[in-house]
Amino acid sequence: MSLDPKIAARLKRDADGLVAAIAQQYDTGEVLMLAWMNDEALHRTLTTGRATYWSRSRAELWVKGDTSGHVQHVKAVALDCDGDAVLVKVDQVDGACHTGDRTCFDADQLEIPLG
Amino acid sequence: MSLDPKIAARLKRDADGLVAAIAQQYDTGEVLMLAWMNDEALHRTLTTGRATYWSRSRAELWVKGDTSGHVQHVKAVALDCDGDAVLVKVDQVDGACHTGDRTCFDADQLEIPLG
Repeated sequence: MSLDPKIAARLKRDADGLVAAIAQQYDTGEVLMLAWMNDEALHRTLTTGRATYWSRSRAELWVKGDTSGHVQHVKAVALDCDGDAVLVKVDQVDGACHTGDRTCFDADQLEIPLG
Repeated sequence: MSLDPKIAARLKRDADGLVAAIAQQYDTGEVLMLAWMNDEALHRTLTTGRATYWSRSRAELWVKGDTSGHVQHVKAVALDCDGDAVLVKVDQVDGACHTGDRTCFDADQLEIPLG
């Protein structure tokens, strides 16, 4: 099985065949992490209920939580207007970040001089 | 003026010198859009209070709302754990999407067979 051709036709992949994937906690709205998906990762995300990404560093499919236990149960997936990003609403078990933080954006707030 | 060297040193840019930028409505948590920033766009976002991106299609800096009026007032900016994405919390005037939708993810929900 592979990605539904009607969905595949709407994707605008980068030079590496990937679209950006934003993982968001479905109920609180927290943005958890940014990762990447190829067609197979998106197909598995839609059909298994487990968020699955393409690891650019390891060059392999990566089922979030398979090694850490920090699984993402998929609630909804939407494609953006130009087809190069997906928003994956999930229920995140424990922390999303490999550092142990809840989200990958918790540790490094940038100062806004005018803020 | 250019981007604070201490911030610039933490960025992991892609081959085009860009990091991904997720824009999120600061109070509701809606994910509004995914765009891209080079160092100058991030610098301007941090120092002007207006979300500013790099348009890959037009190859120019793009101050969100300059032509549409759909300005993003910046509330907070955070860098992710590996430095290749920023989360920009904004107050979005009207819709973020060029289609008129509130977010770029409103129009194309993907079916989840198991959902």
